[in-house]
Amino acid sequence: MVDVSELLADAPDNWGRWGDDDELGALNWLTAGEVLRGVGAVETGETFTLGVPIGASDGDPVWPTRAPAGHYVTQDQGTIDAGKRDREPFGHTGSADDLVHLHTHGTTHHDALGHVWYDDRLYNGFDARTTNGGLERCGAEHVANHGIVGRAVLVDVARYRGVRALDADERITLEELEGCLDEQGVELGGREILLLRTGCLDYFYAEGADAFYDRYGDSERSDALLEPGITYTPEVVEWFRDNEVPAFCADTITAEQTRSEETGTLIPLHPALLRDLGVVITELVRLDALAEACAADGRYECLFVSGPLKIVGGTAAPANPVAIR
Amino acid sequence: MVDVSELLADAPDNWGRWGDDDELGALNWLTAGEVLRGVGAVETGETFTLGVPIGASDGDPVWPTRAPAGHYVTQDQGTIDAGKRDREPFGHTGSADDLVHLHTHGTTHHDALGHVWYDDRLYNGFDARTTNGGLERCGAEHVANHGIVGRAVLVDVARYRGVRALDADERITLEELEGCLDEQGVELGGREILLLRTGCLDYFYAEGADAFYDRYGDSERSDALLEPGITYTPEVVEWFRDNEVPAFCADTITAEQTRSEETGTLIPLHPALLRDLGVVITELVRLDALAEACAADGRYECLFVSGPLKIVGGTAAPANPVAIR
Amino acid sequence: MVDVSELLADAPDNWGRWGDDDELGALNWLTAGEVLRGVGAVETGETFTLGVPIGASDGDPVWPTRAPAGHYVTQDQGTIDAGKRDREPFGHTGSADDLVHLHTHGTTHHDALGHVWYDDRLYNGFDARTTNGGLERCGAEHVANHGIVGRAVLVDVARYRGVRALDADERITLEELEGCLDEQGVELGGREILLLRTGCLDYFYAEGADAFYDRYGDSERSDALLEPGITYTPEVVEWFRDNEVPAFCADTITAEQTRSEETGTLIPLHPALLRDLGVVITELVRLDALAEACAADGRYECLFVSGPLKIVGGTAAPANPVAIR
Amino acid sequence: MVDVSELLADAPDNWGRWGDDDELGALNWLTAGEVLRGVGAVETGETFTLGVPIGASDGDPVWPTRAPAGHYVTQDQGTIDAGKRDREPFGHTGSADDLVHLHTHGTTHHDALGHVWYDDRLYNGFDARTTNGGLERCGAEHVANHGIVGRAVLVDVARYRGVRALDADERITLEELEGCLDEQGVELGGREILLLRTGCLDYFYAEGADAFYDRYGDSERSDALLEPGITYTPEVVEWFRDNEVPAFCADTITAEQTRSEETGTLIPLHPALLRDLGVVITELVRLDALAEACAADGRYECLFVSGPLKIVGGTAAPANPVAIR
Repeated sequence: MVDVSELLADAPDNWGRWGDDDELGALNWLTAGEVLRGVGAVETGETFTLGVPIGASDGDPVWPTRAPAGHYVTQDQGTIDAGKRDREPFGHTGSADDLVHLHTHGTTHHDALGHVWYDDRLYNGFDARTTNGGLERCGAEHVANHGIVGRAVLVDVARYRGVRALDADERITLEELEGCLDEQGVELGGREILLLRTGCLDYFYAEGADAFYDRYGDSERSDALLEPGITYTPEVVEWFRDNEVPAFCADTITAEQTRSEETGTLIPLHPALLRDLGVVITELVRLDALAEACAADGRYECLFVSGPLKIVGGTAAPANPVAIR
Repeated sequence: MVDVSELLADAPDNWGRWGDDDELGALNWLTAGEVLRGVGAVETGETFTLGVPIGASDGDPVWPTRAPAGHYVTQDQGTIDAGKRDREPFGHTGSADDLVHLHTHGTTHHDALGHVWYDDRLYNGFDARTTNGGLERCGAEHVANHGIVGRAVLVDVARYRGVRALDADERITLEELEGCLDEQGVELGGREILLLRTGCLDYFYAEGADAFYDRYGDSERSDALLEPGITYTPEVVEWFRDNEVPAFCADTITAEQTRSEETGTLIPLHPALLRDLGVVITELVRLDALAEACAADGRYECLFVSGPLKIVGGTAAPANPVAIR
Repeated sequence: MVDVSELLADAPDNWGRWGDDDELGALNWLTAGEVLRGVGAVETGETFTLGVPIGASDGDPVWPTRAPAGHYVTQDQGTIDAGKRDREPFGHTGSADDLVHLHTHGTTHHDALGHVWYDDRLYNGFDARTTNGGLERCGAEHVANHGIVGRAVLVDVARYRGVRALDADERITLEELEGCLDEQGVELGGREILLLRTGCLDYFYAEGADAFYDRYGDSERSDALLEPGITYTPEVVEWFRDNEVPAFCADTITAEQTRSEETGTLIPLHPALLRDLGVVITELVRLDALAEACAADGRYECLFVSGPLKIVGGTAAPANPVAIR
Repeated sequence: MVDVSELLADAPDNWGRWGDDDELGALNWLTAGEVLRGVGAVETGETFTLGVPIGASDGDPVWPTRAPAGHYVTQDQGTIDAGKRDREPFGHTGSADDLVHLHTHGTTHHDALGHVWYDDRLYNGFDARTTNGGLERCGAEHVANHGIVGRAVLVDVARYRGVRALDADERITLEELEGCLDEQGVELGGREILLLRTGCLDYFYAEGADAFYDRYGDSERSDALLEPGITYTPEVVEWFRDNEVPAFCADTITAEQTRSEETGTLIPLHPALLRDLGVVITELVRLDALAEACAADGRYECLFVSGPLKIVGGTAAPANPVAIR
């Protein structure tokens, strides 16, 4: 198997482009001008929330080494019925209260730039040891403080192929990506947020967790998946750099072909995008309803607005991005 | 002390207005038309994220019976240094991973409509027992699935009064609210999301948690606060109804005068807004930078976009709303 | 399927035996005299700890609707290496710190008497509504404040049958129990803590979690198991009552034949023992090493000492009982 | 302030005494013979459970940087009333279920030997980096697998001084310890588990959390305490070594004079005992009732049996030790 350190020895990066202290990466592309460009993409006022449910009774889609969210209720009508809460100071209103116990990568989220690294260096050269006990550098709060607002483009590969969902382990090439954009009639002007639809997440919610893991699980490793997606090649990375892509979103857990057929390793595009280019990877994005609307009127762009949670030192920022058409 | 059941016996409500099964309440006002109206408020493309940090080293502002967020790192450079994670399948990339343990009301959040009730009925008449073990009705996922997108108006009462932050226990009257809007030169057309600034949260972040609790704590009850804000009167509730306010946001933990000088009880406006009118209350919204920008150019409106977490059955939806001017 | 309310309509109970306020149940049998009797069973000074590991890398055995424990490290050499902890006040010592996130029934534990009920009444007649939000009555702290100390007897049914572990869904009858005790040469004098060995837990640790769930899972219900064990009959319950058994322990997750062949329902012996007789049921007790020692010298009794965690209002008390021979 | 590395440069240790792979330390002293010696100390059959409550409504005593336990109920009569749990397969029994979220040092616990270190080495020379992400060496499971069983001796310094509880910051000298033992008429034969009573924990439960932190808090550091206790001197450490003390327990959070008047640093005895000698330090042990009984009949010894939770890689093992007289 390839070592990422060698694989990416000559890969392009954005280190230093926005200063030596920059922890925001390619989100720097999203200037006020780009926000206005995104706003300009709105026509009908339809909105779509792209997050997945947290704590759904049928289970949450997660990478096998993570657990679904816990949801704990500390007060409800039952505790009040039992006389355990003094509601007199509140004029006898009832009230319910709760907590969530949540893997930051266990629901729709933007990866922090410091989530993945190699050669002991994070994005922009920060020491990997700064990750110990929480990201001191390139943590989720940088993504969240800035927010992600701009023009987004949907690349609906499932529809392009005419399938409900791509199969396990399938690869999407750069040519297919461009072919799909072409057929959709979308031109990239640069700095677009990309939304890649494989149909995998729709399959999870239509068929259930068991069917999903049966289809996309890795029979050789119980701790991994074999999702379909794009993968690392020098051309792919250059394409991301040249298009000044600030954020890449997909409707899968891993956002790329999990086991790359190029390298034989797991998720090699992550270090190339997150650590080298500073592109924010966004996973578990629900795209079905948006895709339906795009297909209906042939308009594949939208204003994308995401305000993820500002988890200080977080390795990811849970989110529920909003698409406005 | 007043019993809310009597206090609100004749209060106006929106039950049935959007059907007997409605769990969305006043967010129904936010139609595509209102979204476009909000989009029309954008001029410069400046963005502001209104969420507070989660797990900040100086502490998170919370109601005394709740705890600040826990942030637990399960993998970092340290675990890799110690040889505890097999990174070979990943081509030897490093990776960090974590969880959060979070009171849904313990950070910036939208209250679920089912968060507060009286007379054993939630908004739209649902049985309060449906709250047991998690909201089966009017849970946070309804707010989150819809999202909150529309024109928002800032009401900067702190600036209007010329103070850094309102004092503990102070009341903001309807007249003052209207006077402030007037001075700001804002006209409400109806269906605006309201952002009320008291400066309390800015005080927390400027002076620290100890100073905040010293100033706004209730010396008679260690389990309560005495924040300033608007409070319940029949006129206030009618004003919310007549203006078809979909969501009310404030930069405090309780979003109203915590101990109402009208009723002597804690947070009586909550049941009137959430349970009767279905207005989403939003707390711990950080407004300092937005307020600065509004004051600078005298434009107090913006496009407000919030995609909070879709916690199924949640009593609140943690959020990081984005304001776009 | 049988309704437990009808099944146990005429079942014997210990309600009122130790007063109307008693929340301790059959542990009342464990007087100082019984403690001395237990102490008298010690001969060699060998000790055995009967708890299972928590957070083992190969997984923890749990009922399918519960999750294995989470273990979160908040400080270690890695955080110190990264300069994130000021160790100067400690004279530069290093220090590690952590939390566990644990289902009380998700490891070796004693059930609280209030864990299971029917006809809206807990043990000794307490209102079932007192369970809301945590056991106000018959919670785990009662077991834990008292502790469980006395003479215990091992009933090694696996060895008696000459099998490594009983099969899924198998039943152990009262006759077999008595036959086993007889063959072991043990006479019950009354008030003994019973330790029933099926070998199931040994199978889990020898063969791994997947093999265990394959063997003992319920192919018809992913949310249940089909473990072997004793089950409810009127005679079994009378036997427990007549022998004044204070606590019953087994090396399975459910401590009885999960799906009773008598009733067709799940775990009907639980309400008969916990709620009617006040007998503490103890699950996930590791018995392999103790059984080995007992078989070696033919002595099947020991001093049993358990000090479980005093979780106030808990539905179970996690424990690591110690057997001293 | 003294650096522990220099302070303990010539301190005695037990490294290698029980082999290069030993992770059990001074608990090795607790052989079967010592167990029998402990059993021999039982006369009346009285039992005392020494753990503190977890999740008590009045709060749990914790070091300021840790949080009290969380207790989350996932099922109760309320969820059943609301029809949210299908109890039909269970013959309509009711059932309650819950979790705890617990700092391992946030309740009565035995420190793992790897909890504290210096010079990058744990007890017996293991690399401190093995602590990263959980103790690979000298974790809590070693204490818990072995259990702690032996003769224990109470040293009731509070009673010796004739005070209810020692004051903040007070020191207990070796001479006082010996004087107290002498007055109690106890002779140490070696290998005794020591139980030191200052009365601090009794003060917590008698006067409440606020009074406790007022009295024992450090006015100069909100993240520390100033509890009374013994402290490091070469003589103290030699005394522990010469007496072959396996475990040292106290009724305080820190088990020693928190800020040592010898060194000016916080808890310097911890590294000397845990890391050098392998003596298990045990904190938050409730001793009031046991002390009462000892004083009543002048017998200050007991059989001590602790089976703490087997948290794999834990930095401490929560426990509820049982004393049998």
